[in-house]
Amino acid sequence: MSEKPLRFVTQDDAQVEETPHCTCEWLCRPGIVEADQLQLVRATMPAGKGHAFHKHPGCEEILYVIEGQAEQWVDTERRMLAPGDVAHIPKNVVHATYNPSDQPLVFLAMLSPATDQGPESVDVCNEEPWRSLRQT
Amino acid sequence: MSEKPLRFVTQDDAQVEETPHCTCEWLCRPGIVEADQLQLVRATMPAGKGHAFHKHPGCEEILYVIEGQAEQWVDTERRMLAPGDVAHIPKNVVHATYNPSDQPLVFLAMLSPATDQGPESVDVCNEEPWRSLRQT
Repeated sequence: MSEKPLRFVTQDDAQVEETPHCTCEWLCRPGIVEADQLQLVRATMPAGKGHAFHKHPGCEEILYVIEGQAEQWVDTERRMLAPGDVAHIPKNVVHATYNPSDQPLVFLAMLSPATDQGPESVDVCNEEPWRSLRQT
Repeated sequence: MSEKPLRFVTQDDAQVEETPHCTCEWLCRPGIVEADQLQLVRATMPAGKGHAFHKHPGCEEILYVIEGQAEQWVDTERRMLAPGDVAHIPKNVVHATYNPSDQPLVFLAMLSPATDQGPESVDVCNEEPWRSLRQT
């Protein structure tokens, strides 16, 4: 990191990454703040998109819905989450997030510990039971 | 914990604690979810209230403003935070949050690691330079 780590982070300071399923605004991670244990990203998922079943072998995660509706899976359990609702995902537990509505979904993902490149993610969406779990 | 830890947490599942400066809805911590590294609390601070200068010797913290305006201090630096803005507070760094507006302030506090009783908090508001820092 060339500059002093931030103590305050606004939208202008976020590191923006486009993925196939959402726009990620990284608000806290090494390279932005003096993060050791905590990472925070705000994700905006367009209507109809989804982040298919995956797991983080090294990270615990919390999702917090800010705006819109999330079809959230943790392990083989499914729940529709509204603003203010939360999913807690222990390390290495499979999960997925879809936006089946016609409005954008905005959510926060908090991850621990902090790593430079975000959490390692292992895609399992082509393995059973995940491949057959969600009827689209 | 007598019941199975939750994977999904809504307002009805939150553990509510009243403090002199805010209402805390604990959404993730041991006793609610299988938390090891992450805690999440949603705080509602009435107009005119504040959480004076303190530090957490064992916890890193992120604050994320949901609604209203926060007068946020990290070390001796002050910033007004709006919805979507963030403060990052490394372990053992002094910080304070005030709501100088006439509307409620709602913010998330994320803490790591996870402990049963929330983070240990050391009050320093009667010590210099903190005692003289904020002109009220």
